[in-house]
Amino acid sequence: MKMKLLLSGLALALSSGYTLTAFSQVKPDVLVKQRQAAMTLQGKYYGPMAGMAQGKVPYRADVVTYNASLLDALSRMPWDGFTDATKDVKSATLPSAWSEAAKFKQAQDNFQNAVQGLVRASKGGDEAATKAAIGAVGKQCGACHQDFRQKN
Amino acid sequence: MKMKLLLSGLALALSSGYTLTAFSQVKPDVLVKQRQAAMTLQGKYYGPMAGMAQGKVPYRADVVTYNASLLDALSRMPWDGFTDATKDVKSATLPSAWSEAAKFKQAQDNFQNAVQGLVRASKGGDEAATKAAIGAVGKQCGACHQDFRQKN
Repeated sequence: MKMKLLLSGLALALSSGYTLTAFSQVKPDVLVKQRQAAMTLQGKYYGPMAGMAQGKVPYRADVVTYNASLLDALSRMPWDGFTDATKDVKSATLPSAWSEAAKFKQAQDNFQNAVQGLVRASKGGDEAATKAAIGAVGKQCGACHQDFRQKN
Repeated sequence: MKMKLLLSGLALALSSGYTLTAFSQVKPDVLVKQRQAAMTLQGKYYGPMAGMAQGKVPYRADVVTYNASLLDALSRMPWDGFTDATKDVKSATLPSAWSEAAKFKQAQDNFQNAVQGLVRASKGGDEAATKAAIGAVGKQCGACHQDFRQKN
């Protein structure tokens, strides 16, 4: 495995209030597909970190830094897909995502903040602190799913 | 729409040779779902920029910067999902992705380079140059789909 770190100075924009639909009319089922895609990829990059935090796979600091940076981008992607127009599209989202909109927004913010905490921790080089930050992200995944997602 | 630019100094790692499967055995159908999710989200963030480059929707420099930064992250995500184990999973990928592996890798690199060119252009503030860079990304999307993806 070869990994070269690239400090790209990537400029990200906080997306409060940003919606794609300001620019084009995206169909509700497409919005649902896109938000589900973001969740799928959050799982892709979070999963191996969870395994490391739990000691199930060897800890790799470079992989955590890489995955955390991609998770940072992904943590911004699902939320503008939860428009009112998608309420009736079949998905695992509970009605509470709309009826408790402020609480849902807080859960999104908590998750994004936890991910940004992980990004910082992963750059700090302290393995124990980074593992704790991985756990803190998982806690927010679970909290949001508990309140706003159908149980499997 | 409120957008606050956050220069996060996000550290990304180039992923040549990086595969998730070094850490866990991810099932082939999950790998396909994940790579398709990355393509879905590339479309989400590229689409509005294409519309702007073509003059179909008003040009918004802040949106282009934001979308380009997320596309940068997304441009790194699909490729480790094209493992040999996924060859026989139903998808739109042509056999050429494996039989012409070097050419496929070059197409991935061309796309990632074009996206990074767009990120730079979007920070430069020159609308014409940024629109040209948006077009250059679309050209690489199309080139790769032409050679490695089934026609609709």
